[in-house]
Amino acid sequence: MGLVVQKYGGSSVADAEGIKRVAKRIVEAKKNGHQVVVVVSAMGDTTDELIDLAEQVSPMPSGREFDMLLTAGERISMALLAMAIKNLGHSAQSFTGSQAGVITDSVHNKARIIDVTPGRIRTALDEGNIAIVAGFQGVSQDKKDITTLGRGGSDTTAVALAAALDAEVCEIYTDVDGVFTADPRVVKKARKIDWISFEDMLELAASGSKVLLHRCVEYARRYDIPIHVRSSFSGLQGTWVSSEPLVKTQQQGEKPVEQAIISGVAHDTSEAKVTVVGVPDKPGEAAVIFRTIADAEINIDMIVQNVSAAATGLTDISFTLPKAEGRKAIDALEKNKSGIGFDSLRYDDQIGKISLVGAGMKTNPGVTADFFKALSDAGVNIELISTSEIRISVVTRADDVNEAVRAVHTAFGLDSDSDEAVVYGGTGR
Amino acid sequence: MGLVVQKYGGSSVADAEGIKRVAKRIVEAKKNGHQVVVVVSAMGDTTDELIDLAEQVSPMPSGREFDMLLTAGERISMALLAMAIKNLGHSAQSFTGSQAGVITDSVHNKARIIDVTPGRIRTALDEGNIAIVAGFQGVSQDKKDITTLGRGGSDTTAVALAAALDAEVCEIYTDVDGVFTADPRVVKKARKIDWISFEDMLELAASGSKVLLHRCVEYARRYDIPIHVRSSFSGLQGTWVSSEPLVKTQQQGEKPVEQAIISGVAHDTSEAKVTVVGVPDKPGEAAVIFRTIADAEINIDMIVQNVSAAATGLTDISFTLPKAEGRKAIDALEKNKSGIGFDSLRYDDQIGKISLVGAGMKTNPGVTADFFKALSDAGVNIELISTSEIRISVVTRADDVNEAVRAVHTAFGLDSDSDEAVVYGGTGR
Repeated sequence: MGLVVQKYGGSSVADAEGIKRVAKRIVEAKKNGHQVVVVVSAMGDTTDELIDLAEQVSPMPSGREFDMLLTAGERISMALLAMAIKNLGHSAQSFTGSQAGVITDSVHNKARIIDVTPGRIRTALDEGNIAIVAGFQGVSQDKKDITTLGRGGSDTTAVALAAALDAEVCEIYTDVDGVFTADPRVVKKARKIDWISFEDMLELAASGSKVLLHRCVEYARRYDIPIHVRSSFSGLQGTWVSSEPLVKTQQQGEKPVEQAIISGVAHDTSEAKVTVVGVPDKPGEAAVIFRTIADAEINIDMIVQNVSAAATGLTDISFTLPKAEGRKAIDALEKNKSGIGFDSLRYDDQIGKISLVGAGMKTNPGVTADFFKALSDAGVNIELISTSEIRISVVTRADDVNEAVRAVHTAFGLDSDSDEAVVYGGTGR
Repeated sequence: MGLVVQKYGGSSVADAEGIKRVAKRIVEAKKNGHQVVVVVSAMGDTTDELIDLAEQVSPMPSGREFDMLLTAGERISMALLAMAIKNLGHSAQSFTGSQAGVITDSVHNKARIIDVTPGRIRTALDEGNIAIVAGFQGVSQDKKDITTLGRGGSDTTAVALAAALDAEVCEIYTDVDGVFTADPRVVKKARKIDWISFEDMLELAASGSKVLLHRCVEYARRYDIPIHVRSSFSGLQGTWVSSEPLVKTQQQGEKPVEQAIISGVAHDTSEAKVTVVGVPDKPGEAAVIFRTIADAEINIDMIVQNVSAAATGLTDISFTLPKAEGRKAIDALEKNKSGIGFDSLRYDDQIGKISLVGAGMKTNPGVTADFFKALSDAGVNIELISTSEIRISVVTRADDVNEAVRAVHTAFGLDSDSDEAVVYGGTGR
């Protein structure tokens, strides 16, 4: 039995009862012979309450102090968790990000981990302790200031520690049973995925699946750390995310899982679409537009350029971006209107994105056709299309998204009462 | 203009409004040309809420984790305070006890400061920042674990930093106007003391005055750091605690304060009295009793041994101690009854202590007589007496305490409408 890193999110440790429940679970892993490192988030709504307080004293809280403030949240949960474990008769020590050796850059509020030096954790484990580590936080390499890792930071802490400690697995405990073939709130027949590859998980995360964030999966893939996403409220097996399905499931005494052609359907209604209308169709135009956007530090998702209308020599360029960045993008483009040279801007935040993800589609040419047919049969109009080797995404009206997701989920045999997934021949069906 | 350390207690930063008010006050000091270091406690009831949480997960929270938990409180208040100051256009940086170089021993929950190495604070000041430091916390020298300093710890942090940074003054901001000649809740005519010596302040603190704790005053005396206790809710001068009255008050443009014969009257109803009845009156008996108490780690206050009754060769020994320790003391003595050899124990928690403090009493023999006469005139019966060079304390019934304090306060001319304090001749009056 080797070393296990377990991560518990805020909903799992929302109150004293939750903390005691999680403590029992941790002690079980220890009793099973594992060395256990636990990464914990702030309790329930703590972080939101701290943000509220910050906004009351300052409309623009600064990065360094904001990080100092927010990290109080994990400090509370980790100390309580260590106490609860001790109360069960096992030794535990809690460590801040800094004490655990989580070294980051100096970009406050969204720092990146640049090194992990878990000497104190290693010592604590060797002395027979369970080590509890504050998620989401680190210390900057140059200034020794407290930093936070931004959204999903605790998952990243867990994976980074698992990599640095050469853990067998990084278990991400959450309030759902695992990763599903679609959002179960939208698709009642969504199935829990037993195993998914890093690549497919990365595409799902990028396409709107909220269970794991892209950054954490990317980190796990780089260091080949298997992730097991599971519920802290049940003892069920969740979803394994790893490079190879066989090793991990055999280890758990289960039968090997075969790789499905399609992993799942993700959707995202958090984006908006900006269309730059009447752009001269000449080399370098797109570069100017997207340099303007990049300079405003806005991340964009899909980009589509229409075929130029021969008569005018003008074209339209559309892109999608988080709604929260919409205002900033429009302002940046308007400000540089003469430099870019366009007629007008259109802003549309009533869009949704549906993505089909699966490494199997690379070798199954029928997938794309089936995808479009399913959408068409459901009466869903497609506005933009973008593809990767293992993903097809379309933008539709936001109102159509749920119906579209259900239609695609059924068409690809992902519904939980289906006997098996759709089988593709060389030409599709 | 030199360096000033300001300390704000939890009631001064109880909510966002309080934090903004305190921020303005800090910025004023900075505008007046001072380098400003601010030590801040946790907001209002934060610490109590954290203790509640700890008790929910564990009946006996451990020292290390308990300290980790509690220090979250100052982390929140200090980050918010730094944000609020920045919002007023001044630069501020917050520092944990560890970052500020507050090095302690490893006694969790009541660590003692063994060194202060404020290199980062000095740098922050030299760069023009206001430095905000978490009170009450430090880092242990040997294990690098987070520690807390126990009751009144933030005041001690402030004085220790003032000493290490060679500050002009350590300002302790609180919710009262300063140190009074008696508790204003008991004595309506209590006067604010303009200046008091370290020695008298130490005796007042040891006798029940709650404004400053003994430990903090002791630290200030050792390093000769003037303390200015004042209200965070007004701009009034408070009470200066220092070795010499002239220097500090002239600096503030006020007339020199003459040392009063009597500084004030303190009272304390938090103690209980234990009487060990029927102890053989032979050498070594008291030593056995108080070794038993010391081994149980109980701090005692007054000790009185009655004159032995010649007929029996037995005597009684009484001592006072915090009520909270009463049970433990009785248990320890009963357990060692045969070793000590006594008849019975009496426990009385309906007592109160009244103390008169003033360096002037050393050279004024009439003080003691006047003190007893005032109590006698008020019909207060005295049960125990203890004296130091600059203090007389008596134990009475708890019910008599308030009346006794008022009578003594009036008798010594301390009431605020008195024209002047009582003047002593060589023989008293």
